[in-house]
Amino acid sequence: MSTSTALLTDHYELTMLSSALRDGTAHRPCTFEVFTRRLPDGRRYGVTGGTGRVLDAIENFTFGEAELAQLAEHRVVDEETLAWLRDYRFQGQIDGYPEGELFFPGSPLLTVRGTFAEAVVLETLVLSILNHDSAIAAAGARMVSAANGRRIIEMGSRRTHEESAVASARAAYLAGFTATSNLEAGRRYGIPTTGTAAHAFTLLHDSERSAFESQIAALGTGTTLLVDTYDITRGIELAVEVAGPELGAVRIDSGDVGVLARQAREQLDALGAKNTRIVVSGDLDEYAIAALRAEPVDGYGVGTSLVTGSGAPTAEMVYKLVEVEGRPVAKRSSHKESRGGRKAAVRRYKDTGTAVEEVIFQTAPGASEPVLGPHDRFLQIPLMRDGKRVADLPTLEDDRQRLRHALVTLPWEGLKLSHGEPAIPTTFHTA
Amino acid sequence: MSTSTALLTDHYELTMLSSALRDGTAHRPCTFEVFTRRLPDGRRYGVTGGTGRVLDAIENFTFGEAELAQLAEHRVVDEETLAWLRDYRFQGQIDGYPEGELFFPGSPLLTVRGTFAEAVVLETLVLSILNHDSAIAAAGARMVSAANGRRIIEMGSRRTHEESAVASARAAYLAGFTATSNLEAGRRYGIPTTGTAAHAFTLLHDSERSAFESQIAALGTGTTLLVDTYDITRGIELAVEVAGPELGAVRIDSGDVGVLARQAREQLDALGAKNTRIVVSGDLDEYAIAALRAEPVDGYGVGTSLVTGSGAPTAEMVYKLVEVEGRPVAKRSSHKESRGGRKAAVRRYKDTGTAVEEVIFQTAPGASEPVLGPHDRFLQIPLMRDGKRVADLPTLEDDRQRLRHALVTLPWEGLKLSHGEPAIPTTFHTA
Repeated sequence: MSTSTALLTDHYELTMLSSALRDGTAHRPCTFEVFTRRLPDGRRYGVTGGTGRVLDAIENFTFGEAELAQLAEHRVVDEETLAWLRDYRFQGQIDGYPEGELFFPGSPLLTVRGTFAEAVVLETLVLSILNHDSAIAAAGARMVSAANGRRIIEMGSRRTHEESAVASARAAYLAGFTATSNLEAGRRYGIPTTGTAAHAFTLLHDSERSAFESQIAALGTGTTLLVDTYDITRGIELAVEVAGPELGAVRIDSGDVGVLARQAREQLDALGAKNTRIVVSGDLDEYAIAALRAEPVDGYGVGTSLVTGSGAPTAEMVYKLVEVEGRPVAKRSSHKESRGGRKAAVRRYKDTGTAVEEVIFQTAPGASEPVLGPHDRFLQIPLMRDGKRVADLPTLEDDRQRLRHALVTLPWEGLKLSHGEPAIPTTFHTA
Repeated sequence: MSTSTALLTDHYELTMLSSALRDGTAHRPCTFEVFTRRLPDGRRYGVTGGTGRVLDAIENFTFGEAELAQLAEHRVVDEETLAWLRDYRFQGQIDGYPEGELFFPGSPLLTVRGTFAEAVVLETLVLSILNHDSAIAAAGARMVSAANGRRIIEMGSRRTHEESAVASARAAYLAGFTATSNLEAGRRYGIPTTGTAAHAFTLLHDSERSAFESQIAALGTGTTLLVDTYDITRGIELAVEVAGPELGAVRIDSGDVGVLARQAREQLDALGAKNTRIVVSGDLDEYAIAALRAEPVDGYGVGTSLVTGSGAPTAEMVYKLVEVEGRPVAKRSSHKESRGGRKAAVRRYKDTGTAVEEVIFQTAPGASEPVLGPHDRFLQIPLMRDGKRVADLPTLEDDRQRLRHALVTLPWEGLKLSHGEPAIPTTFHTA
């Protein structure tokens, strides 16, 4: 398998390139901007996710012999374009919101500067990554808020494409999830992985008791026993009988988990297993998690709803040409209007630290910048200079903390799970 | 990058394996079955997608030094298990519904037979692929039905994970889409790719005219010109002026595309461009496509709604242990009941060729098989024997034809886009 990401691209990027190389416009300096026109229906904030993966993917965006042969064979582009692609490496400038930063409609999430040729070919790949990872991160952040400090484990790999699963585990960790079930995410991103047993393990054995005995022998009494294969009450009784009161946790994966958790807590306490934790899973989303706040649940396992963005599987970001040779450009169609010109963004805060608004302004020479208050801050950071990744970029752990802090700055209604307006308004600053 | 798929797996598959190797149950012959308890809300049929990718992924499911080192370092499993994984290759039997076959609640889509150890570790990877690809294929099939013979192009790569994009293009082609924008899908699966230009190409140029001239010079008059960057009427006028009446097509990507298509057709006809086709794109789903049936639209470009499964981004299939050493097993919890025992399926048809019901029956020795009518047929085919792919499996083109024919056999209400019950009932045949 080639490690090149160059064909994870739409056909039209290369036909545009080909036409522009012929007519000479390919070398015009351009700025492309990634933003979203709106948040998913009723969502109050977006979470930037995937920026780190974008930088990795751009570094691997090169056309080797295999890629060039494919393009030649299918006559996607002409000889001149093939020759140009052979030497392609992105050498431009990229600035953007770091991962874990909140965003709102119009926020300039990523700004790519370079020649038209070198920047246009990145459109599809950049958007694929940001749209996916940001959608998962935003859903994850709502779930982490709902879990209110309790452990929350990502276990949705089986409900999404096998590679989306790895990226989803990463985005969930960014969002504050404790761990993932996905082993490849552990390898690729150093995320803690976890897991013990499924119902199949109990069914494999001659009895629930022998399954529990086997698991305790292999994984120790600190493990989590899945107690709902047959009868939950009997399962819990057996679990404590086999493991003793030091049993780490029991997991309940079906039924009315709130009621069952309460019963399980009483039963565990009565059996002397006061420190045995209760983990619930099975079709949980942020609403179900929130509804369990009053119940004695110690941890959540979340699958489908996380990896499908809990109703918003894509972030609907676009990658738009906003400046050509220093001149602002924008499409002028009926209802998909874009604002031309390269932009920057500032988030304004009250003295109390609460965010007030997202201010977006043009950076063109002569354009006025908004006057900064003492707590206001610029949102973009440099990511690539001359095609090289900037030194000392934040780590995934840094980004995880960034999100945790950013959520605290939202006005209180910004963390409500119900449908509503963006937590803060976006203002377009004009001179 | 390793080509191994072995870590695209949930942690608990390997802890179960480890426990089962210790207690000796790992080598028990088992049958796992993939099925779905229900179709997505209101859907009338499912479409099997991804089976070919599953077989590829199983062939690459091997633990090399890099994978073993990761598992050892993080103490996911013990030494004995590492040694076992080092030699792992799946050597069992797989039968299943071929791609493009319709399915219904309970249909045994894939049956994996082998030791517990060799079959349990495949759970996550098998489900990731089938859940994703089947969700996309089902959404795609509805769109193809709605397009009613008109060309329909997949262009959703930017709205989903970069690798899901490739698999989505494949699933869309299976569903009957004409082509894709995704170049990697062209390389990997031989799917036709297509594309011409985006709004950025027009904005790059000093005028719309120079952009059109450049594109025609590079791609010929048979190309598709995007006419809605500024004013559509002026854009169409200019397009025909530059390309002549032999212009291949115009594309409209925004606004009320139905009204605009009608106006465009009149204008093109008046300009003598009677053969110039009209392609529309921009937030189309199966409902929007159907609503355009009466309009002079020659082709559709579909993005977001396809790659997100049009409201159903995952197929919710499960991989359940149903038989251990010839003995049926099943979980007995409140509302997630499963039927034990290895199963097969027959689809019954009327003399007219219309499908009537999906009959599912146990294949255990002594169990009775349903009596077949002259038009009834078994739905599973052999896919792997002793870990080797069966010779002469159907190609993607075969599977595409299979789906086309299968949809014709549905009762008429089965093709309605509105919410409803499954098109045919599932019956569990008992002796």
